[in-house]
Amino acid sequence: MNFLRVRNKPWADGYIKAHADYIVIDPQNWLGKWQSRFEKSQPLDVEVGTGKGQFIIEMAKAHPDINFIGVELQKSVIATALRKFMTAPLPNLQFVLTDGANLDEFFHPDEVNKIFLNFSDPWPKKRHAKRRLTSPGFLKTYQTVLDPAGTIEFKTDNRGLFEYTLVTMNHYPMTFDYVSLDLHRSAENETNIQTEYEEKFSPNGPIYKLVAHFNA
Amino acid sequence: MNFLRVRNKPWADGYIKAHADYIVIDPQNWLGKWQSRFEKSQPLDVEVGTGKGQFIIEMAKAHPDINFIGVELQKSVIATALRKFMTAPLPNLQFVLTDGANLDEFFHPDEVNKIFLNFSDPWPKKRHAKRRLTSPGFLKTYQTVLDPAGTIEFKTDNRGLFEYTLVTMNHYPMTFDYVSLDLHRSAENETNIQTEYEEKFSPNGPIYKLVAHFNA
Ligand SMILES: C[S@@+](CC[C@H](N)C(=O)[O-])C[C@H]1O[C@@H](n2cnc3c(N)ncnc32)[C@H](O)[C@@H]1O
Ligand SMILES: C[S@@+](CC[C@H](N)C(=O)[O-])C[C@H]1O[C@@H](n2cnc3c(N)ncnc32)[C@H](O)[C@@H]1O
Repeated sequence: MNFLRVRNKPWADGYIKAHADYIVIDPQNWLGKWQSRFEKSQPLDVEVGTGKGQFIIEMAKAHPDINFIGVELQKSVIATALRKFMTAPLPNLQFVLTDGANLDEFFHPDEVNKIFLNFSDPWPKKRHAKRRLTSPGFLKTYQTVLDPAGTIEFKTDNRGLFEYTLVTMNHYPMTFDYVSLDLHRSAENETNIQTEYEEKFSPNGPIYKLVAHFNA
Repeated sequence: MNFLRVRNKPWADGYIKAHADYIVIDPQNWLGKWQSRFEKSQPLDVEVGTGKGQFIIEMAKAHPDINFIGVELQKSVIATALRKFMTAPLPNLQFVLTDGANLDEFFHPDEVNKIFLNFSDPWPKKRHAKRRLTSPGFLKTYQTVLDPAGTIEFKTDNRGLFEYTLVTMNHYPMTFDYVSLDLHRSAENETNIQTEYEEKFSPNGPIYKLVAHFNA
């Protein structure tokens, strides 16, 4: 019973309501007004599928000159991210509880500077390919909200998802800015900020990374 | 001394001359006449950097309906390939001793159906990037001789060279038909024909494979 209580996280609803300054549950109402939620108006980077928030919190600490938004679909998961964040809140990070498929409903065209996708659910079955966060439908949404000079930064340990993403982004077409097939043994690793999944799974094999932008 | 004799392979010159039916050292003189060197006129696939020939010999055995040409720069290496081949000659395989940089001097535009690049020398230093067989200068040559529907099939164990090739082919631009980041654990492995280097180095880590074609 204790186990169930933890999994259902009945505290999440109340916790989210009590911290409305840092988390949004009605993103459509913030269309065109995101910068007003931050201390300063500055470039906006978005992570889709933020999970428990380690990456986006560390990014916000490391880059005070950028505003960050972490988007996550699961209430209990984003509430956990929020709780971690509230131990040391930052003026340049906000959370949004919603489906990343709808980014274009609450961001203006070209409003976003970078989109981070980290260890996205692999959906290995072909008939679920549309649910992958790097499928063409999602790419179309990202293209709408991304600045033309903006990039997508994708990391995963999942070989199948990375192979799929290389092919899908190449076909879209997108242009590759950076590819690593073993990030933790690449020069770029010096400035890499790890996600929860990355810490957990990198002992088992390589971490793949792809940075790409949409063709003009 | 015995070692030196083996390395210099003084037998190579004589062996090549004695088997002029199967190896060409003056490819420019065969421009437009390659099909006359085979038993039948049929699609032409070319490997650049054939090494000791294991891959192209096995390919020729497996695909009697395709004519193959193995191009190799080093005399002693191609002589070794030829010697292996002469134990069981095939009517659909020829060797060419030359630099793959000059393919467009001895093949007509669109004459080639597939180009295979296997475990090409990595040239890891940036200032040697132009020597890599997947650098833009080489790609331009391949594009000239490849049929518009033709493909390049590239395999390597070298992570840096594969990362470089993904980016370079994406930029060219070329379209990816297939990517594997661990060929020997992919479904495609069932029909894979291994090269010498592949057999030697695959125990150390993954074999990467990319199949791509030029955009129309
Ligand atoms: C495998 S976890 C990875 C979490 C974190 N990025 C990491 O690297 O540790 C994937 C997360 O993406 C979230 N997610 C999946 N699809 C989503 C979508 N369409 N919109 C927003 N979040 C999504 C899941 O709820 C889950 O928390
Ligand atoms: C590392 S070996 C690989 C041999 C073989 N493909 C394999 O996988 O076992 C690379 C070969 O490519 C040849 N080579 C390098 N540059 C070449 C070029 N420009 N044209 C033709 N062959 C070349 C080298 O002489 C060498 O035999």
